[in-house]
Amino acid sequence: MNVVHKYGGTSVATIEKIQAVADRIAELKKAGNNVAVVCSAMGKTTDKLIEMAKAVGGDRNKREFDSLLSTGEQTTCALMAMALQARGVPAVSLTGGQSGFITDTIHSHATIRKINGERINQVVASGAVPVITGFQGVTADGDITTLGRGGSDTTAVAVAATLGWDCEIYTDVDGVYTIDPRRCPKAKKLDTITCDEMMELAAMGAGVLETRSVELAKKYGVNLYLGRSLEKDLTKGTHIVEKYFEAAVVTGIGVIDDCSMLSIKCEFGGDTVSRLFSSIAEMNINVDMISHQLDDKTAILSFSCSAESALEIMERMPDEHFTVNNGLAKLSLVGAGMATHSGVAAKALSTLYENGIPHYQITTSEISISITVDKDHLQKACDALAKAFDLCEE
Amino acid sequence: MNVVHKYGGTSVATIEKIQAVADRIAELKKAGNNVAVVCSAMGKTTDKLIEMAKAVGGDRNKREFDSLLSTGEQTTCALMAMALQARGVPAVSLTGGQSGFITDTIHSHATIRKINGERINQVVASGAVPVITGFQGVTADGDITTLGRGGSDTTAVAVAATLGWDCEIYTDVDGVYTIDPRRCPKAKKLDTITCDEMMELAAMGAGVLETRSVELAKKYGVNLYLGRSLEKDLTKGTHIVEKYFEAAVVTGIGVIDDCSMLSIKCEFGGDTVSRLFSSIAEMNINVDMISHQLDDKTAILSFSCSAESALEIMERMPDEHFTVNNGLAKLSLVGAGMATHSGVAAKALSTLYENGIPHYQITTSEISISITVDKDHLQKACDALAKAFDLCEE
Repeated sequence: MNVVHKYGGTSVATIEKIQAVADRIAELKKAGNNVAVVCSAMGKTTDKLIEMAKAVGGDRNKREFDSLLSTGEQTTCALMAMALQARGVPAVSLTGGQSGFITDTIHSHATIRKINGERINQVVASGAVPVITGFQGVTADGDITTLGRGGSDTTAVAVAATLGWDCEIYTDVDGVYTIDPRRCPKAKKLDTITCDEMMELAAMGAGVLETRSVELAKKYGVNLYLGRSLEKDLTKGTHIVEKYFEAAVVTGIGVIDDCSMLSIKCEFGGDTVSRLFSSIAEMNINVDMISHQLDDKTAILSFSCSAESALEIMERMPDEHFTVNNGLAKLSLVGAGMATHSGVAAKALSTLYENGIPHYQITTSEISISITVDKDHLQKACDALAKAFDLCEE
Repeated sequence: MNVVHKYGGTSVATIEKIQAVADRIAELKKAGNNVAVVCSAMGKTTDKLIEMAKAVGGDRNKREFDSLLSTGEQTTCALMAMALQARGVPAVSLTGGQSGFITDTIHSHATIRKINGERINQVVASGAVPVITGFQGVTADGDITTLGRGGSDTTAVAVAATLGWDCEIYTDVDGVYTIDPRRCPKAKKLDTITCDEMMELAAMGAGVLETRSVELAKKYGVNLYLGRSLEKDLTKGTHIVEKYFEAAVVTGIGVIDDCSMLSIKCEFGGDTVSRLFSSIAEMNINVDMISHQLDDKTAILSFSCSAESALEIMERMPDEHFTVNNGLAKLSLVGAGMATHSGVAAKALSTLYENGIPHYQITTSEISISITVDKDHLQKACDALAKAFDLCEE
């Protein structure tokens, strides 16, 4: 087996945890597998570094901020390599630069431009375990960059893509759930989920895997797995696959628990809509659930966004006549099989109706249906839909 | 003024101390000076990292150990650069690699092979302050190395040599003293000392400046100064110069407070001495105060070393008949003017005689006279010689 393991901050938070991971990796290596490890910074290290940066008034200088933060991963990886060697397993720690991760110059959320796999491959060929810092790379000029949210997962998938290996992301939850277990404690753990479904859920705030790393896995055909740190039984976690043999109708539900809806009437064929979106783009605001409908010669445009964004848009465009609904919530039913099943929308809307929950907007994509409801109805809607689509344990 | 400032661990131990140094540097820069800063790791950071390495059983892997330790300096420099920018002073932190410090591959005590000054000069030319990590460099393959004891001072002098600037080393003592003030509390602080004298004293354990950095300063003609952190009055510290206009006879006294003397008789013209030193070299033992004298057809060879080394030599060469004296101490009177003053030896030996202190060995160099005495007499010898040569305040 050839595999890249990624361990997040909680999984390497103490010397004891590092040792436990080293035991696991050593076990795999001695059984004849090829292993590479990607590590995050230990536990609360990143938070502490951010505190220190704020204390010197410098958290705004992105180049220095990246140089500061990158010490966290570098420390973990050096210690992990040492722990592996203490167990008789040759190991070499590699920073982003040493791993050949060349990025653009956008500090704090850099994009990987290319990976020079030479050093990593050399280490593997020598029989050693590469222990690679997550979350970082270097610019062509040698300045350290960090990759933004979920950066360590991105590193892990990128390493797997470079080596042509599988990728296993280890964290402090069992796997991906149909619905956030903090919202629905009986939510089922998914054995499999497609890349596209995962990306929809991640965009909705499902924190376990960032869209970006899943997108990379899909693009480079990396077999991706998410599971609890140190759990050896891979049926216990979630395999993220390109597609199912036969798709589930609804795999899961993503939730955004607070948003606003803005609506505006405009002339059919007029320029209101294009002006509006140009202004919104200049304000750097993200909007969602864009919906445009004709009513005779009048068009109605609506979209959802955060409450703060809604305020800002209305303040900056006082001449437009907006209608605003605050205190909404958005549910997205996600399922790769939805493309061939038209009954999902019907079933979802009937379920809401039967539970006395009115809906505001409906939008759809290839594999999702999103509906906005009043915040106060959110939990009830969630529970009702989870039951209707068999997403919870009994 | 063009100057490199170096701040050791105590001087940057906390955020407040970093801020205080940043205030000082900003003041200098705004007054129109060119400044570069070299920083050590904050306070006890290096000790903590070493502890963590030991805890994972890996402090023996030198490559990983260097990668781990280097995070200390990297952290301080990123924070210092941020603090300077918060004061309106453009600043760029640079790791050993980014500063162009290319070393050999001897981890833990690497030697600088060359410095590519391009990046540092670029930063200076842009009007910014380079904030450079002390104690580290990279190999030609990009592996991080550390430079050994006094490494940050070495970095500072090397940067000054590269830029053609002065170098000021800031620490937690006022300057260089004639004798270690912990031994002689009334020892005078030297306004000036030559490179050669400083190297003699450093070899004797005078901790403030390592031989290596002074040697570099001498080789590249760098004006070197040592003083207390944040002290602006440069008459308060010690200037390390190439030579004096007129040299002091005795500038200071270095002390090694425990050593052993081994003596052996041998045939004149025989091979005992060469065999002996070959064996000692193989054992990797340092010996000192080598003395060889003829007594008719018999020669006597003696030398001093640590008590453990003496034991080891006698155990490994059981067929040789050594005489050993343990519990000795060595005093070295150091002075650039000694080359032209033959009375120093006379004065030193009379002083010891008048104080009832017998001596074992005497050896001399161009600028020093070393004498071994019984440990028990050390303090008395020190005080008497300090008084005789006017090295203490009244």
